[in-house]
Amino acid sequence: MSAELKNDRYLRALAKQPVDRTPIWMMRQAGRYLPEYRELRKEAGDFMALCKNAELACEVTLQPLRRFPLDAAILFSDILTIPDAMGLGLYFETGEGPRFERPVRDWRSVNALGIPDPEDELGYVMKAVSTIRRELKGEVPLIGFSGSPWTLATYMVEGGSTKNFSEVKKMAFEEPEVMHMLLDKLAKSVTLYLNAQIANGAQSVMIFDTWGGVLSPRDYREFSLHYMAQIVDGLTREADGRKVPVTLFTKNGGQWLEAMAATGCDALGLDWTTDIGEARRRVGDKVALQGNMDPSILYASPERIRQEVQIILDGYGEGSGHVFNLGHGIHPGVKPEHAGEFIRAVTELSKTYHR
Amino acid sequence: MSAELKNDRYLRALAKQPVDRTPIWMMRQAGRYLPEYRELRKEAGDFMALCKNAELACEVTLQPLRRFPLDAAILFSDILTIPDAMGLGLYFETGEGPRFERPVRDWRSVNALGIPDPEDELGYVMKAVSTIRRELKGEVPLIGFSGSPWTLATYMVEGGSTKNFSEVKKMAFEEPEVMHMLLDKLAKSVTLYLNAQIANGAQSVMIFDTWGGVLSPRDYREFSLHYMAQIVDGLTREADGRKVPVTLFTKNGGQWLEAMAATGCDALGLDWTTDIGEARRRVGDKVALQGNMDPSILYASPERIRQEVQIILDGYGEGSGHVFNLGHGIHPGVKPEHAGEFIRAVTELSKTYHR
Repeated sequence: MSAELKNDRYLRALAKQPVDRTPIWMMRQAGRYLPEYRELRKEAGDFMALCKNAELACEVTLQPLRRFPLDAAILFSDILTIPDAMGLGLYFETGEGPRFERPVRDWRSVNALGIPDPEDELGYVMKAVSTIRRELKGEVPLIGFSGSPWTLATYMVEGGSTKNFSEVKKMAFEEPEVMHMLLDKLAKSVTLYLNAQIANGAQSVMIFDTWGGVLSPRDYREFSLHYMAQIVDGLTREADGRKVPVTLFTKNGGQWLEAMAATGCDALGLDWTTDIGEARRRVGDKVALQGNMDPSILYASPERIRQEVQIILDGYGEGSGHVFNLGHGIHPGVKPEHAGEFIRAVTELSKTYHR
Repeated sequence: MSAELKNDRYLRALAKQPVDRTPIWMMRQAGRYLPEYRELRKEAGDFMALCKNAELACEVTLQPLRRFPLDAAILFSDILTIPDAMGLGLYFETGEGPRFERPVRDWRSVNALGIPDPEDELGYVMKAVSTIRRELKGEVPLIGFSGSPWTLATYMVEGGSTKNFSEVKKMAFEEPEVMHMLLDKLAKSVTLYLNAQIANGAQSVMIFDTWGGVLSPRDYREFSLHYMAQIVDGLTREADGRKVPVTLFTKNGGQWLEAMAATGCDALGLDWTTDIGEARRRVGDKVALQGNMDPSILYASPERIRQEVQIILDGYGEGSGHVFNLGHGIHPGVKPEHAGEFIRAVTELSKTYHR
């Protein structure tokens, strides 16, 4: 595996080293807004068939890079691969999102859960990682990822998506010891999983805590952040003689940036409800920042998109430490040309902030 | 209408006058978690039939007060009465939440909207308010309410509930002048509506901004807060020789409390993602605070509920200015006995914070 990287803007920005312009990638950049993705998805049958086939996962990962001058690739996979490997039976119901055949709701079922071997039950992900890394040919770095323990737990206990998080919170509030056993197993699993991704070629990793923001500040620390910190502590932080940066992203976590930065991670992902300039003042001495345009701006005109990019660049201000991104995944209904405009605006307008 | 009020703890706390204990009420305290509500709802047929019948709306409003020693009553009504009165055709689809037959998505349809006369098209709400006020017999104050202009606009443009807010944001970003015309009409309508509620007997009002938290900080100020401030400016602030306090509640608005407090409102409602002690330090010199227990705690045991109440009371600390509440509406699946435990814990444990 070659350590040479033709474009290392993304890694340099995360390390706050000087860059010529602000790097950019988009959460869910490989996905339904791209007609070539929809085409391949149709051929493959279902979503998990795409994820489980290393060649197809690689192809999907590379699709947005062929269209746009993005500064990073992100592994195409699902956030629920770990619970699936634990035997919960992941499936997708049209319009309903992910579901589990066997949710875990009591001590017995949590106790029975094993920690998946990333090279065995999750070997298909590792094969995808190494294939993508090879096929990237050093053009841009590859980002690996996992859902956070709390986020995985919400799906595992609820059995799918949820509005009120009643079941998972019932367990957290009523049987905290069972919840902690579950989260501990998940933290161990995620650590192994991300380290295996790194061993197989991921040059940076990101932990998506989609649902930490539905907790109170105390509960967030106890049930979500604590386990992300545990993972950060256990991660391989160097590969090929380069630092492997780790980014934490808690949706609706804007009130807790200080606590998140204190985990020792390298960067925080911000959703669009947080002012990026304020975030920099709060935690910019500790971590780099990723974000944070409202993905819905991509529904607007190219002029409006450009204007919003300018506002966010201005908000962050001069100097390195900013990776441009959306504040959440790109919406499936966005026109690819609008994504293109967004990326062009960032590459063009950001130069003056790096001199 | 008598100005005598047997229990004015709620109003005193909002004015930061001394109280013997922290007052408490619960958002959605009249609702599906109560078997007597479900009974009446079944008899009445649908939800709007309950809202449109003053006697039934009054009965429903009083139900929780017969069970629990609550310190305030809140008008039983829907947040979408104004768009319904504007002619959009509100209906409810089982499991889907509210829907509009005729969403507004362009200049023409926004331009055609009238401002409803609260005593005419919304006369049924005013009749409910005066009936409830009369039947309360001065036991506790009556809270009137409205959805915020932005929140109403989301339903009006989307045509119902939404996950990504694509249509309403498309309008805000792409045709801001159309969106502002809509929000301006809504702000005028809400002002008239709340003033009519006050004229008919509401002793306090609350503005529910359920969806302001899906906006960026700048967009929140432009599309939501600006119009709430306009309403606060236009409200009747005194009735029966007493101040009529106004409370603003933006779900997921914890990052913007300073800006919210600067509107001149009397209190802020907090959801459970904000630490109430920090909120007090940030804006406690300007406004009273309402909140903020995670409603899901009510799924837990009485001991756990009591423990959480203690934590929140400790968080706010000593002195007046705190109205205890949940951070959002009570979930339909909560056992009434657990709500009772919650209320008992607040009434018992809060005394030591007021000496």
